[in-house]
Amino acid sequence: MWPNRRVMDLFKIEHPIVLAPMAGAMDADLVIEVCEAGGLGSLPVATIDETKMRSEIAKIRAATSKPLNVNFFCHKPPVPSNAREHAWRERLKPYYQELGIDPAAPVPSSNRIPFDASLCAAVEELKPEVVSFHFGLPDAALVRRVKAAGSLIVSSATTVEEARWLEKNGCDAIIAQGFEAGGHRGMFLSDNPATQVGTFALVPQIVDAVTVPVIAAGAITDARGIAAAFALGASAAQVGTAYLFCPESKILPPHRLALKSARDDGTVLTNLMTGRPARGFINRVMREIGPINDIAPEFPLAGGALAPLHAKAQQQGSGDFSSMWSGQAASLGREIPARQLTAKLVAEAQAIMRQQAGL
Amino acid sequence: MWPNRRVMDLFKIEHPIVLAPMAGAMDADLVIEVCEAGGLGSLPVATIDETKMRSEIAKIRAATSKPLNVNFFCHKPPVPSNAREHAWRERLKPYYQELGIDPAAPVPSSNRIPFDASLCAAVEELKPEVVSFHFGLPDAALVRRVKAAGSLIVSSATTVEEARWLEKNGCDAIIAQGFEAGGHRGMFLSDNPATQVGTFALVPQIVDAVTVPVIAAGAITDARGIAAAFALGASAAQVGTAYLFCPESKILPPHRLALKSARDDGTVLTNLMTGRPARGFINRVMREIGPINDIAPEFPLAGGALAPLHAKAQQQGSGDFSSMWSGQAASLGREIPARQLTAKLVAEAQAIMRQQAGL
Repeated sequence: MWPNRRVMDLFKIEHPIVLAPMAGAMDADLVIEVCEAGGLGSLPVATIDETKMRSEIAKIRAATSKPLNVNFFCHKPPVPSNAREHAWRERLKPYYQELGIDPAAPVPSSNRIPFDASLCAAVEELKPEVVSFHFGLPDAALVRRVKAAGSLIVSSATTVEEARWLEKNGCDAIIAQGFEAGGHRGMFLSDNPATQVGTFALVPQIVDAVTVPVIAAGAITDARGIAAAFALGASAAQVGTAYLFCPESKILPPHRLALKSARDDGTVLTNLMTGRPARGFINRVMREIGPINDIAPEFPLAGGALAPLHAKAQQQGSGDFSSMWSGQAASLGREIPARQLTAKLVAEAQAIMRQQAGL
Repeated sequence: MWPNRRVMDLFKIEHPIVLAPMAGAMDADLVIEVCEAGGLGSLPVATIDETKMRSEIAKIRAATSKPLNVNFFCHKPPVPSNAREHAWRERLKPYYQELGIDPAAPVPSSNRIPFDASLCAAVEELKPEVVSFHFGLPDAALVRRVKAAGSLIVSSATTVEEARWLEKNGCDAIIAQGFEAGGHRGMFLSDNPATQVGTFALVPQIVDAVTVPVIAAGAITDARGIAAAFALGASAAQVGTAYLFCPESKILPPHRLALKSARDDGTVLTNLMTGRPARGFINRVMREIGPINDIAPEFPLAGGALAPLHAKAQQQGSGDFSSMWSGQAASLGREIPARQLTAKLVAEAQAIMRQQAGL
């Protein structure tokens, strides 16, 4: 029994749990397990190309007939700035030297692809039940095409103002992404991390501001968080970090180690890794340059010059230069398979809700 | 019916609602109303002297026989630095000139008094049922004296590490003060605002880390917040901003206006007003100097040079230089008397809890 079925009825899912799409940290394997457990599985496309997207969706569709969410970033492509990217490379040069990498070698270009007409055509063909976006919404014409293809539209709001904008521009449900959430802040009407809002404050204020159902996100790692999200007025919970612990996630060893020893105060918002604020475990480059620094080039270009450092350090078992995204409640995570985790979250959340009423 | 009576039984109160002690914004009037409504009223002493504390407590004791919390700051007195305070006055000089205040006039000294032997003697005599501290705990000898006098000891933790420290050092209950909370961060083992933790993440992690009961704080402005706090494992909710709306609070007109038009993203953590990070509505001085800036002298000295600006601007109906503390959920507040507010929070929270169980 769930006290509010709005998101379940909208998405036609059995349980109000949405797997957070965690680009670079997961693939079809995690999606399939959450779908089969009755939640909404989400496939992140930001770091894969269309060919890979098609093969992943084919794999999911072959394994489960449950509804699927496909997630895209919809940032504006960056305006390259030679001066800014040069300054960034100069700042990182001592690390290149320390790790024995040629600082003059060309760095890979950004690998975050925004949603575009070509991906839209694939969506029209593949018809995922839900399409979610991060960093607002793509151009209105693309949103109309996705809706016309029959997919529901979802995006993340980090403020009430963003939630109102998303509802006005066609979202069928809105993710209220609290300050505690791991990964990129979905912020798109402000670039000021100082006024970002915590989950506890954000969820009820967005619930009051929009008529579409609200999915709470940010530090929902165990069943207590799911019960609390409903108490605050949400109709579902988006869960990310908890699923990184699962054997089906595709994270590198230093990231897994960081999760296992996570502390409540072990993450920060940083713009160093990609150019946009995102929450992850504090690593060496964040500590030494400062987690928020204007020297990082525009999203997603900052990641280019870090890529060789990331690759070399990972070979040595180190996450010194890697994005290891996590929310602020990773210490509540459990290393169990995703299907089992989903069932546990469901059973425990319902038990808490009964207990709340003194039953 | 409350699902968890630990704090109610400990404090001998009827409802698990603690009035946040909001120094400078309230006095006995608000305390009396919350006590009589069955919550725990808290008298803040940080900005009043012992004589005033005694008269306020006498007023409360004459009006109600319910348990009382008396709250003290327990910071180390600052080490004055002429250079730092001079730089701060120089930075503020253009504002003095703009407002027609003589920049050479002496500024008032700090008015935040830490708990000391003299206040401790008064506590031993007056025997409040609960004594709460902010910024950790005073010296162990003073803590022992307060306990020996029969008062329960409470303090705020902003991280799991601080919660463990507080339990080890004698706290009978711990306030988990989330990042969203208005007023001063209670942080005492770290001075880094970047790793402060949201209410949603902090409460369950502290509940898991300590054996004493936990009081959730930060963005609990309506009944949904109280129900969510219990779902996260708390045994009570500390409510601050919601009570600022009441006619019994003692806030200046610009502060009341800011509350009535509050937005979720309208506050920041700032160290400018006192020297320690605190959350309040963004005002002109925060916007123009930046809310967190090393130029602000050590707590509470930063407030000295701001005091003449605050006084002059307030005369003109402006909060440009004033602390207008607020949490991130002020938009959920209602301007009704405190006793009525408390009763509404109780009734609505219990209704949400029943509804959560599908009743």
